Amino acid sequence: MSNLKLDREPKITLLGAGPGDPDLLTLKGVKALQTADVVLYDALINEALLAYAPETAIKVYVGKRSGEHSYEQDAINKLMVDYALNFGHVVRLKGGDPFVFGRGYEELDFADSYNIPVTVIPGISSSIGVPGLQQIPVTHRGLSESFWVITGTTTSGAISADIYQAAHSNATVVILMGLKKLAQIVAVFEEAGKDQLPVAVIQNGSADDEKFVVGKVNTIVDTVKKEKIEAPALLVFGEVVSLHPAFKTLIQSYANIA
Amino acid sequence: MSNLKLDREPKITLLGAGPGDPDLLTLKGVKALQTADVVLYDALINEALLAYAPETAIKVYVGKRSGEHSYEQDAINKLMVDYALNFGHVVRLKGGDPFVFGRGYEELDFADSYNIPVTVIPGISSSIGVPGLQQIPVTHRGLSESFWVITGTTTSGAISADIYQAAHSNATVVILMGLKKLAQIVAVFEEAGKDQLPVAVIQNGSADDEKFVVGKVNTIVDTVKKEKIEAPALLVFGEVVSLHPAFKTLIQSYANIA
Repeated sequence: MSNLKLDREPKITLLGAGPGDPDLLTLKGVKALQTADVVLYDALINEALLAYAPETAIKVYVGKRSGEHSYEQDAINKLMVDYALNFGHVVRLKGGDPFVFGRGYEELDFADSYNIPVTVIPGISSSIGVPGLQQIPVTHRGLSESFWVITGTTTSGAISADIYQAAHSNATVVILMGLKKLAQIVAVFEEAGKDQLPVAVIQNGSADDEKFVVGKVNTIVDTVKKEKIEAPALLVFGEVVSLHPAFKTLIQSYANIA
Repeated sequence: MSNLKLDREPKITLLGAGPGDPDLLTLKGVKALQTADVVLYDALINEALLAYAPETAIKVYVGKRSGEHSYEQDAINKLMVDYALNFGHVVRLKGGDPFVFGRGYEELDFADSYNIPVTVIPGISSSIGVPGLQQIPVTHRGLSESFWVITGTTTSGAISADIYQAAHSNATVVILMGLKKLAQIVAVFEEAGKDQLPVAVIQNGSADDEKFVVGKVNTIVDTVKKEKIEAPALLVFGEVVSLHPAFKTLIQSYANIA
């Protein structure tokens, strides 16, 4: 354990890395990584970001997606605190923003129970940034005065009750981690009379292998299947999707068939 | 006009600068500024960011808040296109994220009508980042499965109809540009039976002169008045606000009085 530095004060930085493109990290994020003694990073983190940390820093993958190296949240919390107590500055590098379905507050709360100071550095949330990079604005005068961001995956396994409310609202509705529940979510929008509402589905948003499809509520399930869209993917329900050139092309193709 | 470069291809980058702290700019944002021929920047932009642009780049303040140098949106659109056609790469530097009530799509659409290519670079939206820096998570297991971001200022001058829906939802509700309508917004939450809901108000989020107050729906108007909170400020309505130490202190002070 040559890295052991008992003279270092323990501290933790919860750092949002953004949606995938490593250049979407903030300058504040770079500075935090440059002073890291330990970096704990998630599955969706671009490993290029680890290069901002000192060569001597310990880098630990704690991704929950890999079966082989899977960590439960409790285990991550303990690991984070142990590393801080033994090595000093732990940067907890998380995809998107730490507080958008990132369980960041659970980590903050656990560190707090050990009196370890925590700094939070926001990241570009994929909920706004990924549609934005596709030039779909979550708000736009005349189309949307608000946007509502919801998780598709709740602790219980059922879709969130908030999705039922959202389907009846005028908000642009952005759903993260919802691809596996798409058919069920679409049914909720159809029941709300929104079968013609434009929808976009974006896989691996901002990354080199991003995939993008558009449709309407009543066509998107077929399109996602046909185009083999896979998780992680983000769903955008709202009139703002109609601004995308791909949607205009789609509507033109319907007109040509008719 | 020594900067005139007719050999440059016109292009526009809509760049989100984040909430105020200049270190919340992304690396991608820095790179865009480094290749700017012109920077058009808003009122809430930290001028330290202009230093990333070349010394020779033209920097134009187009803030809408100053009475003296006020530009209408149409004028900004035209200025942006004119500069692109005459000088090359225009970076349109906007507070927060370009598509969160930033009228960014109107600028994109106008540029598009002149066939000028536009790149969008997302920024940290104050809607997520400003509560996050205060360690208030917009989502947290057991408290909130979603967050809903709404403008307090609509074209008509009335508060958005979406606020009425949001007051009845389980979402964390974040309202931007709503401080002047606070009493009216609070009345909407009271009508929805939410008079005890925790509320935070954050002025100049992430900047050195940030001000922060917490309360409940039925106390926040008085607190904001007493503490002289001014625009720009962001409102957070939701149980997640109860996680903040200041809220716990507030509840303790109520208990001591009782």
